[in-house]
Amino acid sequence: MNTLTSTDYPQPQSGDIPRYSGLPTFFRLPFGAQIASLDIGVVGVPWDGGTTNRAGTRHGPRELRNASSLVRRVHPVTYQSPYDLARVGDLGDVQVNPVDVQDSLARIENYYRTLYQQQVMPLTAGGDHLTTLPILRALGREQPVGMIHFDAHSDTNDTYFGGERFTHGTPFRRAVEEGVLDPQRTVQIGIRGALFSEHDHVWARANGITIIPMEQVTQEGMQTVMERARAIVGMEPTYISFDIDVLDPVYAPGTGTPEIGGMTTLQAQHGVRLLQGLNLVGADVVEVAPPFDQGNLTSMTGATMMFELLCQLAGAHHRRMTSTGAMR
Amino acid sequence: MNTLTSTDYPQPQSGDIPRYSGLPTFFRLPFGAQIASLDIGVVGVPWDGGTTNRAGTRHGPRELRNASSLVRRVHPVTYQSPYDLARVGDLGDVQVNPVDVQDSLARIENYYRTLYQQQVMPLTAGGDHLTTLPILRALGREQPVGMIHFDAHSDTNDTYFGGERFTHGTPFRRAVEEGVLDPQRTVQIGIRGALFSEHDHVWARANGITIIPMEQVTQEGMQTVMERARAIVGMEPTYISFDIDVLDPVYAPGTGTPEIGGMTTLQAQHGVRLLQGLNLVGADVVEVAPPFDQGNLTSMTGATMMFELLCQLAGAHHRRMTSTGAMR
Amino acid sequence: MNTLTSTDYPQPQSGDIPRYSGLPTFFRLPFGAQIASLDIGVVGVPWDGGTTNRAGTRHGPRELRNASSLVRRVHPVTYQSPYDLARVGDLGDVQVNPVDVQDSLARIENYYRTLYQQQVMPLTAGGDHLTTLPILRALGREQPVGMIHFDAHSDTNDTYFGGERFTHGTPFRRAVEEGVLDPQRTVQIGIRGALFSEHDHVWARANGITIIPMEQVTQEGMQTVMERARAIVGMEPTYISFDIDVLDPVYAPGTGTPEIGGMTTLQAQHGVRLLQGLNLVGADVVEVAPPFDQGNLTSMTGATMMFELLCQLAGAHHRRMTSTGAMR
Amino acid sequence: MNTLTSTDYPQPQSGDIPRYSGLPTFFRLPFGAQIASLDIGVVGVPWDGGTTNRAGTRHGPRELRNASSLVRRVHPVTYQSPYDLARVGDLGDVQVNPVDVQDSLARIENYYRTLYQQQVMPLTAGGDHLTTLPILRALGREQPVGMIHFDAHSDTNDTYFGGERFTHGTPFRRAVEEGVLDPQRTVQIGIRGALFSEHDHVWARANGITIIPMEQVTQEGMQTVMERARAIVGMEPTYISFDIDVLDPVYAPGTGTPEIGGMTTLQAQHGVRLLQGLNLVGADVVEVAPPFDQGNLTSMTGATMMFELLCQLAGAHHRRMTSTGAMR
Amino acid sequence: MNTLTSTDYPQPQSGDIPRYSGLPTFFRLPFGAQIASLDIGVVGVPWDGGTTNRAGTRHGPRELRNASSLVRRVHPVTYQSPYDLARVGDLGDVQVNPVDVQDSLARIENYYRTLYQQQVMPLTAGGDHLTTLPILRALGREQPVGMIHFDAHSDTNDTYFGGERFTHGTPFRRAVEEGVLDPQRTVQIGIRGALFSEHDHVWARANGITIIPMEQVTQEGMQTVMERARAIVGMEPTYISFDIDVLDPVYAPGTGTPEIGGMTTLQAQHGVRLLQGLNLVGADVVEVAPPFDQGNLTSMTGATMMFELLCQLAGAHHRRMTSTGAMR
Amino acid sequence: MNTLTSTDYPQPQSGDIPRYSGLPTFFRLPFGAQIASLDIGVVGVPWDGGTTNRAGTRHGPRELRNASSLVRRVHPVTYQSPYDLARVGDLGDVQVNPVDVQDSLARIENYYRTLYQQQVMPLTAGGDHLTTLPILRALGREQPVGMIHFDAHSDTNDTYFGGERFTHGTPFRRAVEEGVLDPQRTVQIGIRGALFSEHDHVWARANGITIIPMEQVTQEGMQTVMERARAIVGMEPTYISFDIDVLDPVYAPGTGTPEIGGMTTLQAQHGVRLLQGLNLVGADVVEVAPPFDQGNLTSMTGATMMFELLCQLAGAHHRRMTSTGAMR
Repeated sequence: MNTLTSTDYPQPQSGDIPRYSGLPTFFRLPFGAQIASLDIGVVGVPWDGGTTNRAGTRHGPRELRNASSLVRRVHPVTYQSPYDLARVGDLGDVQVNPVDVQDSLARIENYYRTLYQQQVMPLTAGGDHLTTLPILRALGREQPVGMIHFDAHSDTNDTYFGGERFTHGTPFRRAVEEGVLDPQRTVQIGIRGALFSEHDHVWARANGITIIPMEQVTQEGMQTVMERARAIVGMEPTYISFDIDVLDPVYAPGTGTPEIGGMTTLQAQHGVRLLQGLNLVGADVVEVAPPFDQGNLTSMTGATMMFELLCQLAGAHHRRMTSTGAMR
Repeated sequence: MNTLTSTDYPQPQSGDIPRYSGLPTFFRLPFGAQIASLDIGVVGVPWDGGTTNRAGTRHGPRELRNASSLVRRVHPVTYQSPYDLARVGDLGDVQVNPVDVQDSLARIENYYRTLYQQQVMPLTAGGDHLTTLPILRALGREQPVGMIHFDAHSDTNDTYFGGERFTHGTPFRRAVEEGVLDPQRTVQIGIRGALFSEHDHVWARANGITIIPMEQVTQEGMQTVMERARAIVGMEPTYISFDIDVLDPVYAPGTGTPEIGGMTTLQAQHGVRLLQGLNLVGADVVEVAPPFDQGNLTSMTGATMMFELLCQLAGAHHRRMTSTGAMR
Repeated sequence: MNTLTSTDYPQPQSGDIPRYSGLPTFFRLPFGAQIASLDIGVVGVPWDGGTTNRAGTRHGPRELRNASSLVRRVHPVTYQSPYDLARVGDLGDVQVNPVDVQDSLARIENYYRTLYQQQVMPLTAGGDHLTTLPILRALGREQPVGMIHFDAHSDTNDTYFGGERFTHGTPFRRAVEEGVLDPQRTVQIGIRGALFSEHDHVWARANGITIIPMEQVTQEGMQTVMERARAIVGMEPTYISFDIDVLDPVYAPGTGTPEIGGMTTLQAQHGVRLLQGLNLVGADVVEVAPPFDQGNLTSMTGATMMFELLCQLAGAHHRRMTSTGAMR
Repeated sequence: MNTLTSTDYPQPQSGDIPRYSGLPTFFRLPFGAQIASLDIGVVGVPWDGGTTNRAGTRHGPRELRNASSLVRRVHPVTYQSPYDLARVGDLGDVQVNPVDVQDSLARIENYYRTLYQQQVMPLTAGGDHLTTLPILRALGREQPVGMIHFDAHSDTNDTYFGGERFTHGTPFRRAVEEGVLDPQRTVQIGIRGALFSEHDHVWARANGITIIPMEQVTQEGMQTVMERARAIVGMEPTYISFDIDVLDPVYAPGTGTPEIGGMTTLQAQHGVRLLQGLNLVGADVVEVAPPFDQGNLTSMTGATMMFELLCQLAGAHHRRMTSTGAMR
Repeated sequence: MNTLTSTDYPQPQSGDIPRYSGLPTFFRLPFGAQIASLDIGVVGVPWDGGTTNRAGTRHGPRELRNASSLVRRVHPVTYQSPYDLARVGDLGDVQVNPVDVQDSLARIENYYRTLYQQQVMPLTAGGDHLTTLPILRALGREQPVGMIHFDAHSDTNDTYFGGERFTHGTPFRRAVEEGVLDPQRTVQIGIRGALFSEHDHVWARANGITIIPMEQVTQEGMQTVMERARAIVGMEPTYISFDIDVLDPVYAPGTGTPEIGGMTTLQAQHGVRLLQGLNLVGADVVEVAPPFDQGNLTSMTGATMMFELLCQLAGAHHRRMTSTGAMR
Repeated sequence: MNTLTSTDYPQPQSGDIPRYSGLPTFFRLPFGAQIASLDIGVVGVPWDGGTTNRAGTRHGPRELRNASSLVRRVHPVTYQSPYDLARVGDLGDVQVNPVDVQDSLARIENYYRTLYQQQVMPLTAGGDHLTTLPILRALGREQPVGMIHFDAHSDTNDTYFGGERFTHGTPFRRAVEEGVLDPQRTVQIGIRGALFSEHDHVWARANGITIIPMEQVTQEGMQTVMERARAIVGMEPTYISFDIDVLDPVYAPGTGTPEIGGMTTLQAQHGVRLLQGLNLVGADVVEVAPPFDQGNLTSMTGATMMFELLCQLAGAHHRRMTSTGAMR
């Protein structure tokens, strides 16, 4: 298709082999790739150490891999395959420590720093949302990144349980405080659900984070919302964090803190498809908690959203390689 | 916030205590309040004595309480807490008789008459829809109330099984016949599903009840529908009855008579949020049948809709107390 | 209602008998009708011999019958009953062979040929989508039929597993090749989901099949889409094939190849209701796989969609009998 | 096999037709048989009007029929088929009234009186245990019957909810009081579970009913227990009532009042197989509540126990016909 | 019954109120009792901070309370009620910290120290098995207690994840090291399941703990095993810890580390019933993980085992009060 | 431990890495081993092409791998690890063809012939029971093997559906006819369940196969049964086939043809543990059908039984290597 597209890029297992067959790597990609040989690494972080309510995201990566066998290789709208645009591989799981939050934060940050140093863009399967903090620490250390954040919750609370600063309800407050996330270039889409206090969103807004509640998404439509999001992040390095609970619980029952009245998968797909052309540096799908799932629906949804994000990351990589800045 | 808001009003348990912890009262409110000390009483009616098809709503109150632990205390759109506007408490369950319909109807009516006499507005967790009949008998005895009725079914049939007049398919015909419900001030929203007979809606319409089928809700939008509903009920005393089966079965699988093609929770939340300023006298969420639920989704949805209704009742109470008639 | 409507037409069991009672025939219709006495025969094909991924549609007919007890007899929009327009009966299941694809294809074709010869329109409960091939062979043998095809997938692949030509991913390619389906009069609605190859839809389009992807349905609306579909099939004999996976997985989790981002049941009902006046010769609901269902939701949805289709078939029959061409 | 065994006896559908195929009659027997043409009628009573705790047995008959498709036709120990010993047919469901207990009791009694008058032995699929009361009224009116009663509960309480005399916790007290059940010839096997009061079993024992608690079954073994049971009922007319909750909840989760520490299915099968040679007049399997079932396990278990009972009833019938008193 | 049995002892809610009704306190006991007014306090510890594999026991107390509504008030074998022998109350949950293990250990220990000081025997609903460590610290501080320990696992490993000393796989090693548990008076019953290393049980045995593997329980029978257990603990203060995974997974699927080939509930009930006469100081049921449960079976089983333990604790209390040392 | 035990043998992933982490290979073994480097190859056959009733075993290997993460490395009774006795690896899945039985039979046979030629003993995760036929063709081609066969069904029927000779109900009739299985050295344990015909077991017995029904296992005990089984197979090459449906459905609900009244897992483990010292050539666990499973119980049970079989195979290998013939 173009000179940079190598036929030697890693490809998913052939469709002639039944999809329920074989080891469930992400998207049926080859397993055991060397980091250095990849442009995009798909990584699992089986962890729920920061979860304040219903745990279970430690089982997320395994079930996301399992469900990703159902995702074929070519995008249905662009008719393009991410595996033709970039070298993609399943790098396995980060080794975390289920009984020590700080130890796990350090392990995760170290792992992603290695990816960053080798210029491999991470596509992460969480894990609860605290997972994103050490990833941002690795990606935003030199320059704070911007972020397009799909979520029902702002995750910018200060503390829980009488002083705990590191939970899945606080990562982005910490990331801004630590200077690895640029709040002026951060937009949160789909926020909803009753609050602990009338002050819950005050800090975020005061620091420049843009909150687009679900009500607004419904009224304005995804096209308008995403145009605004693109304007906010601009062409500087941008991370996409997709908390599965941005979706209505009917699409994603398997999560720890569901909130009714959420986004449809059609809207979410539409939203992600409107991100092309940005300067993406990584992405994640977090908060998939299989013990609360119904018939693997959340895992299937999460895996498909990972594929949508993968297509965006691959496009961003390919644009960088071709220096044209235009994907199609 | 204003002089009437007492810091002594009962408040839900602190967010610093994990939400899965402790006894599941409604919204984590204190249990064992005296009726006389409340403005709004949250009451369970664990009963399915009128159910003609799949039973199970006898388990509704317990699971609604359980799920309500997930609902925090401040409304996400108004940034206001109902617990700052009114004294709200969990009054426990009405003692019903699972094997005798008439006995249960009498017990329920008696209980709500006490609430009515003490000027406590009831927010009820059903129970099947026959539960609403004795509530209306208690609230509408002196003056028939108007009603905004969310439902897939009109529930105005005459009899079942060869003459049974008291089932969950007949409460509103009885309520109109008994003079406790004003049909001219009654509007039914979301009606759909195949009918037993082409005459099923004839009686309701002939008596002045307004039926707004789901097709019409889809075409006109919730804003238009609710404006019409507000005009129908006016500023006279109005009850809100929310049958969970008005929602599409994907949002509320745990109900006895699901009908595909229903309302989204977003629409339902939007609809209820458009009710502010009315002269509300009580509300209910009925037909939550946990044995048919999937992963507690229906209970969580029902509990969240109860919170939306609670916010409306608290606002109505607060307006009455301040005599301004304007909520914000 | 009109002179052709016989009070002797078979009717579902009375609503005075609880709907969970008795044998679950389709729509509680009498069982054991003679083919010759019917205008429309409801038939089960308990078969998944062509399934390439997750099997289970062999259990579809039984659960669709079971769930159809919940569907009452009168359409909620037209206030008309199909049982007043045509003689409808449950003809039981075709005897298939679960371990031999070709044998089953022959058995199914033979059965439907009998129906065709006796001028009984089939309403089929599948079965996987390969089921539709022998039905088309029976109905389209003398003249290729047109088809309105609701599906997430085009089902026009050539082969699977290194040469298998008869799977549920290939029926319509075979049907066109065999001359029993007219591609110029075939329209596929709701297509979506990642593809095996960027060439997956090339054959279909090159042969004249119209593909309307889900994205387009969302953008244009069902009214526009169905007008286009009606124009494509015109007034020649037309078959309707409804693959349950056209629906979003939240409405139809019980299917073998779910794809997120699909149609709502409201949209699907709307779509089918816009088909009146066409020259229909049969219809099916396929790919209901109960082992993957959640709380019988898919079966209930499938049964209700069968009822919508039945109303269309009954209308088409009635118009032919009255020769007016107008349904109401 | 013998001169009385007619090859014209009704037989289940051939094993060459897949068992998931076709309408789920009991054991795949022909449907629509005339009462007069049968020796044993299999009857459903879809009713839970007497249930004091978790309802759902109204769905029992349908799911028992559904699951009975898995039961083949020849007993694995005797290598004999009940369909060679007696004329057996599925008579459908008794029409009950879900909202009126007394009306249902009358309807059921009337139905079984007809069977009794036509000398058709009933094998009943309940329904809650109150179902057995009207059956005993029909069978024991002329002469009180004896009973072998498998159950976790004695079901001989006096009243519930402040005076209710007819619930599924009281049928055998009523039956003894009414003179249709002979307490001296009644034995209850498998009784266990915490009691409301230390006096719960006093009435039963004082009236001559033999209670064999589960602890005793475990200690003495089923062989000893059943010998004692046979001695108690003797050769007078005897009814077998099998409450599915006699089984441990792992074998029968789908029931309203489970008690841990129960019987295994192996023990229950063994127990029933030790009943041959008795003068049986009918049997039932009650308290199967599908909404609480797990993967249809309880229905499958219930259907298989019905087959074991059917074999005993068929043997009893056959012995009466051959007047030898010996089954093999 | 005896002079010490007060009719003023707290009693469960009357059986005349449906058991699915009202707030689910443990065994439907009154809520909000003062510690000082009780002999036995039932306490929840909603915590899984020490869980190394599948988490979820944080939801244990709530579901155990919920399921305990099904347990009536009189023991079926002794015909005696614990509520006549001791003052029993539901004390609610200990406030734990889901993201900090050491903080939670301290909070739990403090709470139980208060109970200990007020001479209230604790019956605990866990929580994972690390919960038992701070309880033993509170109860065994002055004198190390003995323990009868039902479990599939010895829980005497040293560390996990490269040095973590406090997990649910290590509590009893820590308790012995800290001198709060007497290994010579500790017996572990039901041990089974593959091991990480051939040395897994070496430390326990070397320190004097008696391990009775499941194979041995099967061969020798529960009577023999419990006689040995009684001899080991003698008449000194003894704690009973019941890890629900001692049961076969079919009886207790809802647990984090199931092992096939386990105990039946009948055996477990039998075992606990053989403990009467011991000098008991407390008991727990731990490792009930509702997210992995099937139809609340594990919760129901856990609640019933709690009732069996409650009867033993109440008997021990009563003996101490009457100074006879014999229960019956 | 002995000179043959190499520390270089492949070992499962360390217990210090959470067991829910990483790719689910069988028993967390390294993936991608070369056949030539192994003594025992664990192989998946994701196939249900021979299934006559409820399909789904095509998903068996994936879920068995998933569940096998819970199985640790050392046997709890022998305190010995199979990974110290033999080189064991996960060889992935055989590529089968879901829509062509004969093609799949050929593919499977070819694969196992390679293993046989390279002297790698197969431990297979099915797949339905027809899978065992091509395995026996590969292993028994030169000399018919003996077999210890755990199953609820004899699987020696002749044909299904009017002549189909290759189904999961016929493999051992075919294997005997083809001379790859020695009926005189074949014993079937646990047989039960109603039969299609009184002649179902005649062929097997006439050909020398020993059938030990479940009733006999219960009466005689597993020790006696297995002594008899060992005598039947002797010291000639012997295969073990473990159909998961030999277990009672409560232990293995996820299977296509469950029969109540089956074996406990304790009995099955005991049975397999009594097989040591035999001349084993391979083993399988078949008929695990995840779509019908409850909470992965069947997969966990199947994986643990695979581990028990693996220990036997490893012991047999080790004895051959050391030429002593005694395992310990």
